[in-house]
Amino acid sequence: MNPTNTIITIFGSTGDLTIRKLLPAIEKLLQEKLLDDRTKVIAVGRRDYTTESYLSFVEKELKVPFNTKALIPHVTYFKLDVDNQKDYLSLKQYIASISNSDTRKIFYLAVGPELLKGIATNIGESKLVEKEDLNATITFEKPFGSDLASAKAINALLWQYFDEKQIYRIDHYLGKEMIQNILTVRFANKIFESVWNNNTIKHVKIYAKETDTILSRAGYYDTSGALKDMVQSHLLQMLSLVAMEVPRSYNSEDLKNEKVEVLRKLRYDRKSLVIGQYDGYQNEPNIAKDSKTETFVFFKAFVDTPRFKGVPFYLLTGKALEQKESVIIIEFEETSEQHKWDLPLFTNKLYIKIAPQDGISLTLNSKVPGLRNAVEEVDLDYCVACNAVGNLPEAYEKLILDMTKHSKSLFTRWDEIELSWQFIDQVKQDIVNKQIPLRIYKNHQELYDLIYEMTGESI
Amino acid sequence: MNPTNTIITIFGSTGDLTIRKLLPAIEKLLQEKLLDDRTKVIAVGRRDYTTESYLSFVEKELKVPFNTKALIPHVTYFKLDVDNQKDYLSLKQYIASISNSDTRKIFYLAVGPELLKGIATNIGESKLVEKEDLNATITFEKPFGSDLASAKAINALLWQYFDEKQIYRIDHYLGKEMIQNILTVRFANKIFESVWNNNTIKHVKIYAKETDTILSRAGYYDTSGALKDMVQSHLLQMLSLVAMEVPRSYNSEDLKNEKVEVLRKLRYDRKSLVIGQYDGYQNEPNIAKDSKTETFVFFKAFVDTPRFKGVPFYLLTGKALEQKESVIIIEFEETSEQHKWDLPLFTNKLYIKIAPQDGISLTLNSKVPGLRNAVEEVDLDYCVACNAVGNLPEAYEKLILDMTKHSKSLFTRWDEIELSWQFIDQVKQDIVNKQIPLRIYKNHQELYDLIYEMTGESI
Repeated sequence: MNPTNTIITIFGSTGDLTIRKLLPAIEKLLQEKLLDDRTKVIAVGRRDYTTESYLSFVEKELKVPFNTKALIPHVTYFKLDVDNQKDYLSLKQYIASISNSDTRKIFYLAVGPELLKGIATNIGESKLVEKEDLNATITFEKPFGSDLASAKAINALLWQYFDEKQIYRIDHYLGKEMIQNILTVRFANKIFESVWNNNTIKHVKIYAKETDTILSRAGYYDTSGALKDMVQSHLLQMLSLVAMEVPRSYNSEDLKNEKVEVLRKLRYDRKSLVIGQYDGYQNEPNIAKDSKTETFVFFKAFVDTPRFKGVPFYLLTGKALEQKESVIIIEFEETSEQHKWDLPLFTNKLYIKIAPQDGISLTLNSKVPGLRNAVEEVDLDYCVACNAVGNLPEAYEKLILDMTKHSKSLFTRWDEIELSWQFIDQVKQDIVNKQIPLRIYKNHQELYDLIYEMTGESI
Repeated sequence: MNPTNTIITIFGSTGDLTIRKLLPAIEKLLQEKLLDDRTKVIAVGRRDYTTESYLSFVEKELKVPFNTKALIPHVTYFKLDVDNQKDYLSLKQYIASISNSDTRKIFYLAVGPELLKGIATNIGESKLVEKEDLNATITFEKPFGSDLASAKAINALLWQYFDEKQIYRIDHYLGKEMIQNILTVRFANKIFESVWNNNTIKHVKIYAKETDTILSRAGYYDTSGALKDMVQSHLLQMLSLVAMEVPRSYNSEDLKNEKVEVLRKLRYDRKSLVIGQYDGYQNEPNIAKDSKTETFVFFKAFVDTPRFKGVPFYLLTGKALEQKESVIIIEFEETSEQHKWDLPLFTNKLYIKIAPQDGISLTLNSKVPGLRNAVEEVDLDYCVACNAVGNLPEAYEKLILDMTKHSKSLFTRWDEIELSWQFIDQVKQDIVNKQIPLRIYKNHQELYDLIYEMTGESI
């Protein structure tokens, strides 16, 4: 048999992530010849499926039409009980039969965090992945634990069986176009290189707003909340990319060294902390009537590096807010010539728009066209989606492609996890110790008014 | 009789400038109530017209439909022989009959340069304008002389009769939206304030390209050429606005003090000088068959201030070129991180677009959307006209309005004229002394290729 070059083994093949994200991404990569024709996908599951019936199930589950036909030559359904070591040995045998030592073997754990330890242990014990065989790697998604202690425990277990180089931790935010673009915008443009510091930047706002409530995520969300679900991962990642120093090179390790340095120098202003819970949360299905889980969080943070000392970073995320918007707003200082103008001027602002529309926009002061002497704020805009050829790839396409290439820039290293949990644990502890009130909000404006009162900043 | 508040007396009332620019501008300002209802326009001319027949003549001459009806209550035709002192005294008597000491009296010499001295002398001798009566002022257009000596002679005569404060020299370029906007863009935006210097700016390009040939301007143009017609005025004005230091305040005198400082520190690189004449120029009607007048000029200049030392300014203007375009391009340095990228990066460029479309645009490096690791140049754009409410005012509306308000920011001061002629005289002298060849061009590309060879810069 002709050995395949890449085998993607997916645990949790009947789950949402696999059906809605991974298989469509793989199908697209195959179509675009970015994955080799010999690529194999082993869909691992507990249920009794044939490959054919599995694929029909996938097609039925998908709400968007998605042609699984292209996947037929690539996918094999493999029945496996995650707790049964013997099944892993059979899987190993099967994989051996279709691969050779050059084959890239990706084990993708598209499962809930409660299954991670068990599956990882069995993969390790059965030597599906042998330590330091860099062709064989293991991939899983956030949450990476639920606090520093649990993250450390998971990690200790992983390191028992795998080298850090073999571990791909996915924060799918890092696969998004504009997140990937932050480094290009910052470091490939002289104009921003020159102003990216506390002489010129007044403050930075990082928002991840959602209009949605918790929808069907009650079980997980109620044990997590906005701080752990959003801040620990997405928001701190964005903050690191904005605040990091110039890396030695753009390889993955050098980049992460600088991102980690930001987390080391990160502190927050406890007095600015606002946590909230949307009105009605406690009545959602599967949520305790007295749940204290926060669905909103805001605070002011600082990064004590020479570059950013004194520059406030305002972090905000929440559910049931006025709009769906992930954006980083770099606001620059007033011009030093402000006093010479009879007119009020606006501060320059750079918007790095991550969702729902990727793009960059820069606001400038410009003369109001016409005969009056007046200044207005104008918007210089670049919309990524508007200018892309064809559809923008989903984050998962990029992440899967990078895995096949051993490119780890968009994956999270252990020390990033460790430091971000340290930070979150501190905030969590303050909430308890300092009795930070959980504010029940009927609408976003109550919270924004409060934030304005506390910090003088308009959201 | 109720005295009027403003009287605009126009010499040359049957000329192109009056018919195509001044009267339409005045009509619009009246319509928009920016000029008072009591405003009077005295159209001075040699021919035998009544006010009525003059206005019908104006209406006939205009190619664009223009309703002179609104002007009827304001305009009076006044027959005057420009060489006849007595006629000036009658004019004075007439003006006295409709004004008082508070009336703003503007004498607009919309005449060819050959008539300037005579009319100014007669205005002075007849005391139509009395020295240091700041309510009475005199306005004329470029060309301000044809070299330093002639400009000085004109000016000596003007200063004999008028105070510098009473003299309004019009370079209509300064009335254009984006020219007015340059100072706002530079000084009201922190992001540009921080990069506007020789650390960050690589070079500046100032282009005024025309597709037109000389059309009906043969008489004047052949004695002038591109250097005197365009560089001495428009291009050096643009250069001054880009290169000037931060002024003490934004009042007219402080602004001009800084603009003049630029002209003092201006020098050019003789070896970069390219002059050309479009093929066919010598066969145009009323042009000498052996005319050596340049219709194209390019050179590299430097402004030896601490801010701009070492930054080349590439100035280019010409007729019969590939497009009509007036633009200032600020090109920034390569990022100092360039070597860390495997990919070629683009330099950031700020385009200040003056004509035909006013606007600002900034090019940035951005990730190519999609799965490849590639960088592309993207354009953040702001189009003034697209965002203006109604039509943009013509430059002359702004200039006339400013005259009624004694606002001199957009008019040229004597020392600006003096220093720019000094510079142009030097270039002219070099052309003769160093025998700079006049290149006959069939199309723009020959010239641009030559410039590329000589300077390494693409136009």
